[in-house]
Amino acid sequence: MDPRIEKHAKVIVEHSVEIKEGDNVVVSAPFVAEDLVVALYDLLGERGANPTWWAGSSQAKRSFLMASDPEEFSAPAHIEAAAKEADVFINIRAAENTNETGDVPPEVNTAYRQARQDIREEIMDSRWVLTQYPASGHAQKAEMSTDAYEKFVWDAVTKDWEEQRQMQEKMVEILDSADEIRIQSGDTTDITMSVDGMITSNDYAKRNLPGGEVFTAPVPDSVEGVVYFDKPLMAQGREVEGVRLEFSEGEVVDHSAEKNEEVLTKVLETDPGARRLGELGIGMNRDIDQFTYNMLFDEKMGDTVHLALGRAYDVNIGEGQEQNQSAIHMDMIVDMSEDSKIVVDGEVVQRNGTFRWEE
Amino acid sequence: MDPRIEKHAKVIVEHSVEIKEGDNVVVSAPFVAEDLVVALYDLLGERGANPTWWAGSSQAKRSFLMASDPEEFSAPAHIEAAAKEADVFINIRAAENTNETGDVPPEVNTAYRQARQDIREEIMDSRWVLTQYPASGHAQKAEMSTDAYEKFVWDAVTKDWEEQRQMQEKMVEILDSADEIRIQSGDTTDITMSVDGMITSNDYAKRNLPGGEVFTAPVPDSVEGVVYFDKPLMAQGREVEGVRLEFSEGEVVDHSAEKNEEVLTKVLETDPGARRLGELGIGMNRDIDQFTYNMLFDEKMGDTVHLALGRAYDVNIGEGQEQNQSAIHMDMIVDMSEDSKIVVDGEVVQRNGTFRWEE
Repeated sequence: MDPRIEKHAKVIVEHSVEIKEGDNVVVSAPFVAEDLVVALYDLLGERGANPTWWAGSSQAKRSFLMASDPEEFSAPAHIEAAAKEADVFINIRAAENTNETGDVPPEVNTAYRQARQDIREEIMDSRWVLTQYPASGHAQKAEMSTDAYEKFVWDAVTKDWEEQRQMQEKMVEILDSADEIRIQSGDTTDITMSVDGMITSNDYAKRNLPGGEVFTAPVPDSVEGVVYFDKPLMAQGREVEGVRLEFSEGEVVDHSAEKNEEVLTKVLETDPGARRLGELGIGMNRDIDQFTYNMLFDEKMGDTVHLALGRAYDVNIGEGQEQNQSAIHMDMIVDMSEDSKIVVDGEVVQRNGTFRWEE
Repeated sequence: MDPRIEKHAKVIVEHSVEIKEGDNVVVSAPFVAEDLVVALYDLLGERGANPTWWAGSSQAKRSFLMASDPEEFSAPAHIEAAAKEADVFINIRAAENTNETGDVPPEVNTAYRQARQDIREEIMDSRWVLTQYPASGHAQKAEMSTDAYEKFVWDAVTKDWEEQRQMQEKMVEILDSADEIRIQSGDTTDITMSVDGMITSNDYAKRNLPGGEVFTAPVPDSVEGVVYFDKPLMAQGREVEGVRLEFSEGEVVDHSAEKNEEVLTKVLETDPGARRLGELGIGMNRDIDQFTYNMLFDEKMGDTVHLALGRAYDVNIGEGQEQNQSAIHMDMIVDMSEDSKIVVDGEVVQRNGTFRWEE
């Protein structure tokens, strides 16, 4: 067993979900991640927890989705009952082929997701963590060898999260007392928004592993300006590239994309909230030093910000503030490594990816 | 996808558990059987059933068992809740290494099994089937190439079960109206027992796939004589070979084994019922033409009988008859292919593996 896998399991059990004796645990993971599950089961046994492993097989799921009548999807009672009784969910992503469900019609996926909304909410009400095992498919997506990708993932995952929390707390303090945030990058991005009265969250790998961002919610009506997302994003199983959004009074008033624009248009038409921002996130994990086309990592990168269209997180909404509502939450990344700055109430807090306190 | 896998899935869904719309299904299978699960998910989707896949990883299980305190084992609420709400269990055996849990102390395994007795009973109260996927470990155990083992398994599994049921019904009729059964083989086995008032079951692949046996329960006190089991059996993770049992008034009064006799002794000491027979089974599946050291197949072989020490099945107990009770149920096989006969009320019904109606 690779000692980095044992370390990964230890971070999950001791830091992210803090397993206690008697915890009923669901591990959801594809089999390519078996070594990590074996390492987890060792620690769960030691702590007197009760694990069960749900096989996350994208091939089996695809087979089911393709054969089903989407109108018959439901929240099955045996899965919901287990979700209700479980205390902890450990969700491990790992693919040998990231396109395994790529030919499932988007509306079938949507119907399946909607039918299982209650189960997802049961899970969200538990202690849960989402993490990554470095399998070949995600390595290929990242344009890396599996060996290099393993190093990348385990460096990002097994770090000193208390130190990271403290570093991020500086940005939390800045954002919590801030009113106006302005994000500028090259000639293409210049956008301002208010975060007045909102609450900033410090993500230090409790629910995402790796963690490494601080995030808050913009005041819905306050967003003004233009933003260009130079990294592709996945929506409805397809890659959307070169997205440009123009905001006025918080709403997208113009949009375009260099590839699959019609997918972007469809996303924006989901509901009124899909045209407004629900999140402003600032990536602060310096061990994530390259894009891997995997949002779990990309949004944590040290010289990025991300904005999400759609639903705002409950935790970010201050008393008396409006929470943007939507069925979607779509993260999009702005590269801030060059010719870029984040300005908070007129003061530069990040320039070309370097934070004020790092200069 | 190998068309034999699709046929295997069809037999499970259409014949063994007869999937209906809305059925909540648990598939329990190790990853090496993924193709069969993919084929099942296709058919389950078509029929509007709701599957979930429990990963049967013997490596993860071993890791958990080795790290746990056996006194803390429980029936976890999230697993029990799912078992309660499930309508159907499809349990697929498949190992790349049949010894994967071989170094778990027997008492730990026993404690784990006992703690989960309620969950097992929930499963037994549903529609369920146990079947085999031909993975390399079981092929090795069978002393066959994986290719040859695949042919062996799929020939045994995908047969005309209605025809098999009708053939077996002949033996059911003989046993149902029988009083004394006598089993003779070579110089080593000559045992008699009464099945008077007991009910014979016809196993045509509803709960075991392959099926292919008829079985009943001996009247507990009626067993007399000596039996030698020339095929090894697994008990407490160890192989016991050359078992010889002598019965008087239904009870084992003398026993020996050529290998691991102390394991046999321990099994017999489990409880009083462990010294009595709970089952007489007659193998009738002609497509199983060799021993593979896998009870799911061996006990169905056309020229074998098996006797089980321990608990008798509820279905076999006629009104007013005594049911042998025990925590164990240990099947042991007698090869009836040579110099052997089954005699029912003085009439030979099988000689050297050939049934009366086959002569």
